[in-house]
Parts: sequence; structure tokens; C-alpha cells
Amino acid sequence: MGSVTEPSKPSLSVAAFCGSLRKDSWHRGLIRAAEELCEESIPGLLIDYVDISGLPMCNPDLETDGGHGFPPDVEAFRARVRDADCFLFASPEYNYSLTSTLKNALDWASRGGNCWGDKAAAIVTAGGDFGGGRAAFHLRQVGVFLDIHFINKPELYVRAYEDPPKFDDDGNLTDAKVRDRLRQVLLSLQAFALRLHK
Amino acid sequence: MGSVTEPSKPSLSVAAFCGSLRKDSWHRGLIRAAEELCEESIPGLLIDYVDISGLPMCNPDLETDGGHGFPPDVEAFRARVRDADCFLFASPEYNYSLTSTLKNALDWASRGGNCWGDKAAAIVTAGGDFGGGRAAFHLRQVGVFLDIHFINKPELYVRAYEDPPKFDDDGNLTDAKVRDRLRQVLLSLQAFALRLHK
Amino acid sequence: MGSVTEPSKPSLSVAAFCGSLRKDSWHRGLIRAAEELCEESIPGLLIDYVDISGLPMCNPDLETDGGHGFPPDVEAFRARVRDADCFLFASPEYNYSLTSTLKNALDWASRGGNCWGDKAAAIVTAGGDFGGGRAAFHLRQVGVFLDIHFINKPELYVRAYEDPPKFDDDGNLTDAKVRDRLRQVLLSLQAFALRLHK
Amino acid sequence: MGSVTEPSKPSLSVAAFCGSLRKDSWHRGLIRAAEELCEESIPGLLIDYVDISGLPMCNPDLETDGGHGFPPDVEAFRARVRDADCFLFASPEYNYSLTSTLKNALDWASRGGNCWGDKAAAIVTAGGDFGGGRAAFHLRQVGVFLDIHFINKPELYVRAYEDPPKFDDDGNLTDAKVRDRLRQVLLSLQAFALRLHK
Repeated sequence: MGSVTEPSKPSLSVAAFCGSLRKDSWHRGLIRAAEELCEESIPGLLIDYVDISGLPMCNPDLETDGGHGFPPDVEAFRARVRDADCFLFASPEYNYSLTSTLKNALDWASRGGNCWGDKAAAIVTAGGDFGGGRAAFHLRQVGVFLDIHFINKPELYVRAYEDPPKFDDDGNLTDAKVRDRLRQVLLSLQAFALRLHK
Repeated sequence: MGSVTEPSKPSLSVAAFCGSLRKDSWHRGLIRAAEELCEESIPGLLIDYVDISGLPMCNPDLETDGGHGFPPDVEAFRARVRDADCFLFASPEYNYSLTSTLKNALDWASRGGNCWGDKAAAIVTAGGDFGGGRAAFHLRQVGVFLDIHFINKPELYVRAYEDPPKFDDDGNLTDAKVRDRLRQVLLSLQAFALRLHK
Repeated sequence: MGSVTEPSKPSLSVAAFCGSLRKDSWHRGLIRAAEELCEESIPGLLIDYVDISGLPMCNPDLETDGGHGFPPDVEAFRARVRDADCFLFASPEYNYSLTSTLKNALDWASRGGNCWGDKAAAIVTAGGDFGGGRAAFHLRQVGVFLDIHFINKPELYVRAYEDPPKFDDDGNLTDAKVRDRLRQVLLSLQAFALRLHK
Repeated sequence: MGSVTEPSKPSLSVAAFCGSLRKDSWHRGLIRAAEELCEESIPGLLIDYVDISGLPMCNPDLETDGGHGFPPDVEAFRARVRDADCFLFASPEYNYSLTSTLKNALDWASRGGNCWGDKAAAIVTAGGDFGGGRAAFHLRQVGVFLDIHFINKPELYVRAYEDPPKFDDDGNLTDAKVRDRLRQVLLSLQAFALRLHK
């Protein structure tokens, strides 16, 4: 990142979480597109995709050490959250709220020492109708307790059922306008994280 | 239920769901108390506890038959929801929203033919501070899409950390005031379900 | 309404409130369309437009009689709410929530004896983007305390900035699809109110 | 603010808004206490109480100049918002949501050029039960569109009906614990505003 002639921004890692378990998930596609965008044209921002599909259902009875020990895969996941500089949540809306997959991950990393605290985050969703916007507000409410600082703008709710198509059959983002909007989200996240972390 | 001299109310089954996986869960205790209250003093209302702890994480890729077939345990769960007359949700609030366990169950029974539709429901929660009240509002928003008719009153949010103690170490409800309030919730649910189902 | 050969449904009055003060308000136009639809083709449902534009800002200090007396225009408004069988809220979303005009009316009729209690209601909104859907969920939360029973379906959020135009320059609803959807909302409200009031 | 020996923090002005119109409002009392706390012990933070009680009900028809001109008292109010460095909202919850008084002010300063954008804010409320916590989440949702950055912690919801009394008959804050919590809120607001504004 650095160079001889100008001081560079510090590099920030973005832990990215997909709220869907589908193999061809649009939201996994949004994260892939975010990885590409960062590599291509957002110096200083690095997407770290964190797979949350294998976590057990959150159950405090699985904790050890008076609530400070966790099953090994949960521990590994928590470390990834703790080590990240900021977060990207890409998740569908199921029945006007968060998916269980995403909520489960949020909860595991909140217990026995909150791993999310005081970091910046952005939300991107795709769906019908409101494009997932109602779930995004539930996630923001969760973030108050977890002490996450969400960017306000731009918001990205992809109406995926409207023409033109936004994703191919494998869930890859194919729409240039959405791609550009996603880039704006990532730039806003980077700028907000840098303001907070200085 | 019936008698020679007066016509009885029709009997209603209440599918009851616990949003916590803890063995000594207060919410499981609230459902046990609801079972007792119905048996003792609420003729015509019958609690049917539906265990949701073993459901796989909701994943549309597990569906068959173009979205109309489900894994066997999911099918069995869906049938219990479909057969119920109304619902009782007893769930903690995790991080200002629903638990993944409860959201997962809500989602599985919403797909390929919504099983929740047009039925009455009540929510009871226990916790610190607001006693779970923020999660209850998220559940109500989910209910708009699932077409669930929640009773408005009374609301029951148990502040479980305040004196006197409300539960014993096994999660059994021991507080008489909360027990009476729970009874009022069940009576309200029964009355609302009867108004809707006539 | 009645006829010799078949018993008619009881007639229900719908108090209708417009959340906008604009002279050419789309929401006032939605209420006018609802009036026409009821007259034309929904026997037993009668829209009663209640003007809330002149109410003073809600202030408990204006109450008399230990909270049971109100300024004359507030008293008159409260009587209209109390006398209605059910409610239609037509309101824009301002900044992702309710307008002050609508919230003010909701609050005045809640004090010193709630006038809204135990009645059915529907919400219709028009706007950009989500068409007002975020404000609708705030209204539903208010309704929990006011004990209003909202219909769940159909929801009507008019994306008024998308082609084809939905309203003319005077705020009259001109779009046939939205008009038909509004008719479905009114039929659903009527059916729900009748189920509850039987 | 400055001194010879150590560089001081830049001074920040906090525009403070009271959501209640009552003469003896607890929320007005919370703002008075905040003024005292800043003067006594929070160098660099200055409370500027902005009276919103006289604003007309928000109505875009009152705007001139294609939406860029406003009635004089609205213009004056908007200037106060624009000139502030950050915000303190002290407001009761009415019927599980914002008061019309507060929402009205939020809306007037959002139109024809948003005056709230990109500034830090804190919320304090007093009430029964949840102490106003449900309204606070509605305000946070409004803040997403207005681009307000709320602090997450600490939250201050005063349960004003519980013993010991928290306010005297004139609405003055008398409880030392709440006063200290309010101080923590102000310190958190100051720290967050400084991080954002650097």
C-alpha cells in the first residue's frame, strides 16, 4: 500500500458475511463483486469473506469457562470478527426480518466479550419489493446493542426481480448500475471507518 | 368440555414455541406454566409444545419438488404449525432482536405454502431491562408478512433480573404475579382467536 | 343496503385520516378514491373523512378536568374517532417515519380514555422508493399500544414516481391498478372488521 | 477553552431539542441538567437549547422559492440546526413512537437541503415501563435518512415512575444516578463527535 511519494491510507480489512445458505446466493455474489471492486479500484480496502454456514445454532449451554469458552468453529469465527477493521453484511430479508443464519452469527460473536464493538459497517441486500430494506432496519437495531456504527448512505437495496436482470444463474452480479452503487457503498464504508479509527 | 346445560366454547389448540435452546430456559418454563394454567383454569385452550431445537438452518436449497418438499423433520414441524388453531411464542431477546432458533422456525413454516396464515398469536418474553420487548416488535413485523394476528394486550415482558426472583434454577416460573399475567395473556389469546375464527 | 330476500351485512363506518397537509395531497386523493369505491361497489362500507389539519400540537397542559377535558376541536375530533367502526390511514412517509400531522392526531385521541381501542384498520401510502412502507411499520407499533387491529394483507405502497403516473396534478388517483388494489384493501378491512365485531 | 500548557479539545455546540410541550416537562429538565453538567464538568461541550414549540405543523405548501424558502420561524430554526456541531434529543415516547412536536422539527429541517446531515447525536428519554426506549428506535430509523450518527452507548431511558423519584414537580432532575448517567451520555457524544469531525 505505501509508496515513496505520498502517504497512503492505512489498509482496512472488511469481514464480509453472507446471510443466505444457497449455493447460488445473490448475496454471496454481492460479496464476490465487492472483492473484485476492492482489488480493482479501492486501494486500502480488503474484503475477507467469513463463511458462517457451518456454525451451530446459538446456545449458551454450549459455552464453557463461565461463558468465555466456545466450540472450536465458533472460536475461530469470533477471532475473524475480532480481527476485522469493519464489516460488510450481505443478506436477504426473510419474512421482513433477518435470516436465522445471519442472526446466529451476530449472536455468537456478541457473547462472552462482544467482538463487534465500535467498528463501522455497511449493509447490502437484494430481494423483491423493498429489496430487503425492512431486514436492514432490524440489523441496525441489533447494531445498537453490539455497538456497530453503520454508514447511513448510500443504501443499497437491489430489486432483483425487476428488469433488467441483476444476477446470472450462479448468483454473479451482472448489472453495471448495481455494481457502481456497491462501489459507492464500499467507498463510504472505507471513509467512515477511517474517520472513526483515526 | 361440553355439559348438558350450557354450550361450551370450541376447543382451541395453541402451538407453543420456545426461542431458546437452553436446558433450563425461562421461556420453556413459561410454556410449562402456560400448560398448567390451561389445564387448571382455562377450559377450551390446550397448549401443544412444539420442539424447534432440532431443525436444520433454513436453506431453500434443501427443498425438493420445486419448493413444496422439505426434509422430514421440517415437514413434521410444518404440519404441527398448520394444524394449530393459534400460537404462543415464548422467546428471549438476543441483541435487541429475535433468536436465530425462533426466526429459523418462522422461516421454515413460511415457505412453499405459508403455514402461519390468518391465525391469532401471543408473545411472552423474559429478560433484563425491557424484558425482551424490542424482539417482540420484530416478531410483530415478521407477522405482517406471515399474516399472523397478534393480540395487543396484555403485553408480558418479564424483567427477570429484578427482585423478587421470577424463576427457579430449572427455569420454572415461580412468581405469582407473572403467572397471573400469563393467564391474562392466554385468556386474551383465546378470546381473540374465537372472535377471528367464528 | 337491506333487501327482502337476503340479510345484509351490517353497515360499517370507516373514519379516514390524511397524514399530509398539502392541498393536492396524493393521500387525500387516495381517500377520495376510497369514498368513490365504497359508494360504487362496496355495500356496507362508508368512508367518513375526518380532517385533522387544524388540531393544535398535542400538549397535555391543554387538558382540563384532570385529563378528561380537551379543547373543543380536539373533543370533536375524538368523538369522530370514538364513533367510527374502523379506520383508514392514508399518509405519506416523512424521513422514514410518520408525519407529525398524523402522529399528532393519533396522540390526541389516545389520551384521557383511548378512542382507538379494539377496532380494525388499514394503511395506504404513496411515495418514492418503498412507497411509504417504513412509516407503515411505525404506525403498526403505535397501534399495539392503541389496541388497533391492522389488516395484514394486502399492503398498498404506491411508488408514485414510477411510470405510469398514478395521480394527476390535483392529487386524484388516476391509475386503474392502484385503484383496484385500494379496493382490495377496503374489502379486506371490511371483512376483518366484521370478523372482529361479530 | 485554550490554555498555555496543554492543547484543548475544540469546542462543540450541542443543539438540544425537547419533544414535549409541557411546562414542567421532565425532558426540558434533562436538558437543563445537561446544560449544568457541561458548564460544571465537561469542557468543550456547550448546550444550545433550541425551542421547537412554536413551529407550524410541517406542510410543504408553506415553502416558497421552489422548496428553498420557509416561514421566518422555520428559517431561524433551520439555521440553528445547521450551525450546531451535534445534537441532543430529549423526548418522551407517546404511544410507542415519537411525539408530533419532535417529528415536526425533524421534518422541517430535512427539507430543501437537509440541515441534520453527517453530525453526531444522542437520545435521552424518560417515561414509564421501557422509559421511552421504543421511540428512540424510531428516531434512529429517521436518522438513517437524515444522515445522523447516533452514539450507541450508553443508552439513557429513565423509568420515571419507579422509586426513588427522579424529577421534582417543576421537572428538574433530582436523581444523582440519572444525572451521572446523563453525564456519561454527554461525554460519549462529545467523544464520538470529535472522532467524526477530525
